Amino acid sequence: MDIPKISPVDRTIEPGIQQRIDSLTKPVGSLGRLEEIAKRVALIQKTVKPVMAKKSVYVFASDHGVAGSGVSAYPQEVTAEMVRNFLAGGAAINVFAKHTGTAVFVVDAGMKSDVGAKSGNYIVRKTGRSTKNFADEPAMSRKDAEAHVEMGFGLADKAKEDGVDIIAVGDMGIGNTTVAAAVCAACELQTESLIDIGTVIDSKTLKKKEKLVKQALKKHKPDPRDIVDVLSKVGGYCIAQMTGFMLKAASNSMPVVLDGFPVSSAALLACRAEPKAAEYMFAGHLSAVKGHKAVLDALKLEPILDLNMRLGEGTGGVLAVSVIEAAVKMMNEMATFEGAGVSKGKEDKNGIR
Amino acid sequence: MDIPKISPVDRTIEPGIQQRIDSLTKPVGSLGRLEEIAKRVALIQKTVKPVMAKKSVYVFASDHGVAGSGVSAYPQEVTAEMVRNFLAGGAAINVFAKHTGTAVFVVDAGMKSDVGAKSGNYIVRKTGRSTKNFADEPAMSRKDAEAHVEMGFGLADKAKEDGVDIIAVGDMGIGNTTVAAAVCAACELQTESLIDIGTVIDSKTLKKKEKLVKQALKKHKPDPRDIVDVLSKVGGYCIAQMTGFMLKAASNSMPVVLDGFPVSSAALLACRAEPKAAEYMFAGHLSAVKGHKAVLDALKLEPILDLNMRLGEGTGGVLAVSVIEAAVKMMNEMATFEGAGVSKGKEDKNGIR
Repeated sequence: MDIPKISPVDRTIEPGIQQRIDSLTKPVGSLGRLEEIAKRVALIQKTVKPVMAKKSVYVFASDHGVAGSGVSAYPQEVTAEMVRNFLAGGAAINVFAKHTGTAVFVVDAGMKSDVGAKSGNYIVRKTGRSTKNFADEPAMSRKDAEAHVEMGFGLADKAKEDGVDIIAVGDMGIGNTTVAAAVCAACELQTESLIDIGTVIDSKTLKKKEKLVKQALKKHKPDPRDIVDVLSKVGGYCIAQMTGFMLKAASNSMPVVLDGFPVSSAALLACRAEPKAAEYMFAGHLSAVKGHKAVLDALKLEPILDLNMRLGEGTGGVLAVSVIEAAVKMMNEMATFEGAGVSKGKEDKNGIR
Repeated sequence: MDIPKISPVDRTIEPGIQQRIDSLTKPVGSLGRLEEIAKRVALIQKTVKPVMAKKSVYVFASDHGVAGSGVSAYPQEVTAEMVRNFLAGGAAINVFAKHTGTAVFVVDAGMKSDVGAKSGNYIVRKTGRSTKNFADEPAMSRKDAEAHVEMGFGLADKAKEDGVDIIAVGDMGIGNTTVAAAVCAACELQTESLIDIGTVIDSKTLKKKEKLVKQALKKHKPDPRDIVDVLSKVGGYCIAQMTGFMLKAASNSMPVVLDGFPVSSAALLACRAEPKAAEYMFAGHLSAVKGHKAVLDALKLEPILDLNMRLGEGTGGVLAVSVIEAAVKMMNEMATFEGAGVSKGKEDKNGIR
């Protein structure tokens, strides 16, 4: 498996982008992070007139063997039940995606059940039904881990072919915050900062979750310099696919919007494989799941929203898509000082970034 | 002038609202602040199915005599130039309002120039062209201050008659952050926390601004228990109208979304006149203007967005409108556990709010 080649964004067009932003009828820098966001999208798309006409969210669903150790408040059936809910349009991700004009694609990356829906927005990419429980044995083989990363490559190429301008990434799968914690701990983030109550568990389950992650790392000794080793030993099918998806999206020069902790753990792996992938990522929100801040800090990404959400599914990502779109529209739709006949301010040094 | 009677929101329907939120297909509490926001809108609208079909932003524009003391980086003509830009649809507020499906109304609350536009979205409510410079004399008479507060009442009634479900409030006027600082200082907030660079001024101008506000308070001694006294001595026409607007909107049981520092200074006055007004207010964002945090803390409102914006015009407010709308749609469009056939989690005590 080869990691896709990712180019750094071309900074030679940055002065032109900044000039465009500063020509708009507002004090220099007064739209704060929206200006930074607009600039980043423009750099990724290599234009002073970035486009966000077609928006998609890919929600990766799979089951995790570790759920068998009782680390979640929810039974494992909920993974498939929620995927049916996604396909029926009744979940939070559907409501927020519709609100922000984002198309929802659901990927069965390895669920226990086959949902078997006939829908163009339902994509099956599986080699197995649930990973193994990494409390006992590696989650999957190296071969399977590579296959799932490569399936992610394929899905990013599909999004590119579909003409998608921006992609949010979501995750669904009972046990996913435990897997994410193990992946991040394997990447040498502090374990204590990573274990949280997920979709809400009691303190006894929380202790069990922490112990389980620590023991799994001790047992399997995943190599932090080898993402396939980490994925196969303590990863998940969805995490592997998201890792590949993000790497190839970056390689395809597409902006990617992260959601919560499981998605961000995949982003961490992608950036360990190729640090330049981060140039194409936006942290949609800061989740209330404790480990999320540690991962975003490691990725050096600042979240766009902070609404104390902990649902996953891509919900924080698609809400952020709307903020990113506002930033892009600023670039395209606002009048310039010259065009609108508005007087400029004194160009104080402190005022110019 | 009588302050409109404001009823506290009816908490007897709160258990029903919470039950509705907890029946939706997501772990209890997992949508964080969106759940709080949805609950607050539902309480204000007295329904478990809140509505956000019709959204408006009212941008209050007026000139401030204190601009004559050179406290801004921009010439005073910019107030009217930007209002023309609003009416032509080229400003940031237009772009973001269009993005979020919000209608823009611009109120000439006392600009130096008459823009004289013929548009149903342009409203003139003025008794004068610019307030006086409060560095020298009171900004306006008590009679004028009362008249402007009452004009605000009338505009909130107009919004109610128009069937608007939620109103964002914005402000435009060169010098407005100086006026807002004076108003907040008159309300006994710490002056040091209030003086900032506004749309960006140099350190010399910043010192002048601070000295001017302190001297104006010493000279005029506004009575913090009398909002008309504060408004007449160190206020602005737009601040007075927004104060009245927010009081009457609350009286009309309409949710109001604040923008930055000048708008929030009016919210502070409204809440000093009638603390129950705060139950109808949402802090759209935390502005990068220093004084804003102090005012929101005094109002006990937590901002929805924090994007380092410092533009005003209602831009932060209308972006937050979209988040509030997402929260409302959650209440109306998400499937329930029962309806979607999704298994519920263990109802751990720690999991239930």
